[in-house]
Amino acid sequence: MKIIAISGSLRKNSFNTGLIRAAIELKQDSIDIEYFDIKDIPLYNADIDGDNKPLSVDELSTKVTEADGILISVPEYNYSYTAALKNAFDWLSRVTPMPLLGKPLAMMGTSYGMSGTMRAQLHFRQVLIYMDVRVMNKPEIMIPSAYDKFDNEGKLIDESTKDYIRKMLLSFEQFIIHNKH
Amino acid sequence: MKIIAISGSLRKNSFNTGLIRAAIELKQDSIDIEYFDIKDIPLYNADIDGDNKPLSVDELSTKVTEADGILISVPEYNYSYTAALKNAFDWLSRVTPMPLLGKPLAMMGTSYGMSGTMRAQLHFRQVLIYMDVRVMNKPEIMIPSAYDKFDNEGKLIDESTKDYIRKMLLSFEQFIIHNKH
Amino acid sequence: MKIIAISGSLRKNSFNTGLIRAAIELKQDSIDIEYFDIKDIPLYNADIDGDNKPLSVDELSTKVTEADGILISVPEYNYSYTAALKNAFDWLSRVTPMPLLGKPLAMMGTSYGMSGTMRAQLHFRQVLIYMDVRVMNKPEIMIPSAYDKFDNEGKLIDESTKDYIRKMLLSFEQFIIHNKH
Amino acid sequence: MKIIAISGSLRKNSFNTGLIRAAIELKQDSIDIEYFDIKDIPLYNADIDGDNKPLSVDELSTKVTEADGILISVPEYNYSYTAALKNAFDWLSRVTPMPLLGKPLAMMGTSYGMSGTMRAQLHFRQVLIYMDVRVMNKPEIMIPSAYDKFDNEGKLIDESTKDYIRKMLLSFEQFIIHNKH
Repeated sequence: MKIIAISGSLRKNSFNTGLIRAAIELKQDSIDIEYFDIKDIPLYNADIDGDNKPLSVDELSTKVTEADGILISVPEYNYSYTAALKNAFDWLSRVTPMPLLGKPLAMMGTSYGMSGTMRAQLHFRQVLIYMDVRVMNKPEIMIPSAYDKFDNEGKLIDESTKDYIRKMLLSFEQFIIHNKH
Repeated sequence: MKIIAISGSLRKNSFNTGLIRAAIELKQDSIDIEYFDIKDIPLYNADIDGDNKPLSVDELSTKVTEADGILISVPEYNYSYTAALKNAFDWLSRVTPMPLLGKPLAMMGTSYGMSGTMRAQLHFRQVLIYMDVRVMNKPEIMIPSAYDKFDNEGKLIDESTKDYIRKMLLSFEQFIIHNKH
Repeated sequence: MKIIAISGSLRKNSFNTGLIRAAIELKQDSIDIEYFDIKDIPLYNADIDGDNKPLSVDELSTKVTEADGILISVPEYNYSYTAALKNAFDWLSRVTPMPLLGKPLAMMGTSYGMSGTMRAQLHFRQVLIYMDVRVMNKPEIMIPSAYDKFDNEGKLIDESTKDYIRKMLLSFEQFIIHNKH
Repeated sequence: MKIIAISGSLRKNSFNTGLIRAAIELKQDSIDIEYFDIKDIPLYNADIDGDNKPLSVDELSTKVTEADGILISVPEYNYSYTAALKNAFDWLSRVTPMPLLGKPLAMMGTSYGMSGTMRAQLHFRQVLIYMDVRVMNKPEIMIPSAYDKFDNEGKLIDESTKDYIRKMLLSFEQFIIHNKH
């Protein structure tokens, strides 16, 4: 089972990307998780869509098409998701046939403050409806107070967060099987 | 009175940018509206913030600081706002002192479909709370069925939409006066 | 296959309840739709929960537990769902074991104005996450300009809306089969 | 200066109503806060609106009309606001002339869990747009882990929360003055 993982943060030592690094380390053997870095995808502009579509979009599109599921890490900036994350999905929504159509997806996120990125995750759920993405409801991974749970290189060091991630990945595997067409 | 106008679409003949072009044409004499193109602002990345902050961000930041109010045109992609628009505001939220703090702001938007970008505008309102942006509630400019109201170059040709914009700009002038510190 | 239908409007000739009456008339033979009127459910109050829980809540709870799926009609008041609808689901969320847990659900709605209740439906989706309700994404039934599509008794007379409902019910049957535990 | 306070919880010892009791105790001398209990307002039904409108709605409507500002306490049930709160405002939105039109409003809320009712408050902000209610952005009062901050009778005993409320009320007084027509 192949899962593609996307982080909404472009910072090298990002804590949210750290959640993905942790997921890759903590995952069960029955799944594969491949991280795709979206930093080379330029801001969507219909004038460069079509024949001039960036290669990075084609690459992401192929990866998503081939994946059984998508794992995203959703940072929260100004009470919502990041531009980088939305941008990648807006590009994907313009590809025919739609690579996201009906795909299972799981979310997680971590914030410096108390929200655990819940506001961002809830906004992003709305983004996914039109493409009929199947978003797993539970368990929700919303990790507040990131500074206590990651080291300065963005490595997750908190044991209970590791447990949440393990449980989420087990549930996600079942969710993917259940949502297979 | 100086108003800076930002469009969430990067397409040259965008209908949403067309709303701004129309506003510049239809505005009362007592206000100035200057359009700022956000297409050169790269995706936010904390690693290039600080000393390496893009010049385009400094420029936008100065314009916003000097403006009495902000007019934004909010396209709707996938039931929410565009990455380009959120990106500009995320950069602005990182500048000290915050240029957006307490600024009056008015929204408008147009969509091909029936929403008139209401979903995007409502999401963007949430983005503006933390920076205490003063968002005008009424009149709301949500224009559905854009293809009937603009020509192919993105020029607004619909008379009732022109009227809505005129009324909105008159209200916005009063709103700015009212919200002056 | 048994579906329980709930309308968020308490008005006798409500157009949104009219959508449910239409669904009952237009449905395929392979499903049953039973309408449950929530008008007797009092406002939630933890002080009357427990031993003094209203009978109407027990009744609804049993119906939901026995149903294979839930069909709701979501009116829009003040850019969001109605108190009556939220109230019924808040009561349900307090019953043990949770009757809503993992249940398939489809939404529809009609408005006098242009929104087709999209704002209300999107808010209500957020309400359903915690109880892991499986909300069907597509097709979305958002019917604007209700006055043109219903007669004064709240009977649906618009043929394309009837078609949308027929298609939605066919999809919902598949969605329920797919989401069976 | 007269402020009317409304709690979205009907429970006698509610922590959210406790925030209002605390506000009444902690407020500066220059303002008055009167609590209005919404428990007698029945669920909105257009069939009983008009000549049969409940007395409790008339009463609330008069209080809101006479008030200089509105303070609400917003509990969070199922990731959104309570039916009781929405119901009171839906009734108010049907009164002519609209008592809520242009009124200054401040929000607060407390939750057992980590959200501090942020999800509910953000949803309720959307409800208030159509009536052009002027919602104060800052400071936001979102109090998580209510069990540590209130006693069993719902009395606030946490000193930093008391401080937040004091500061909020000082800001709200200025906000009301600023938004006077």
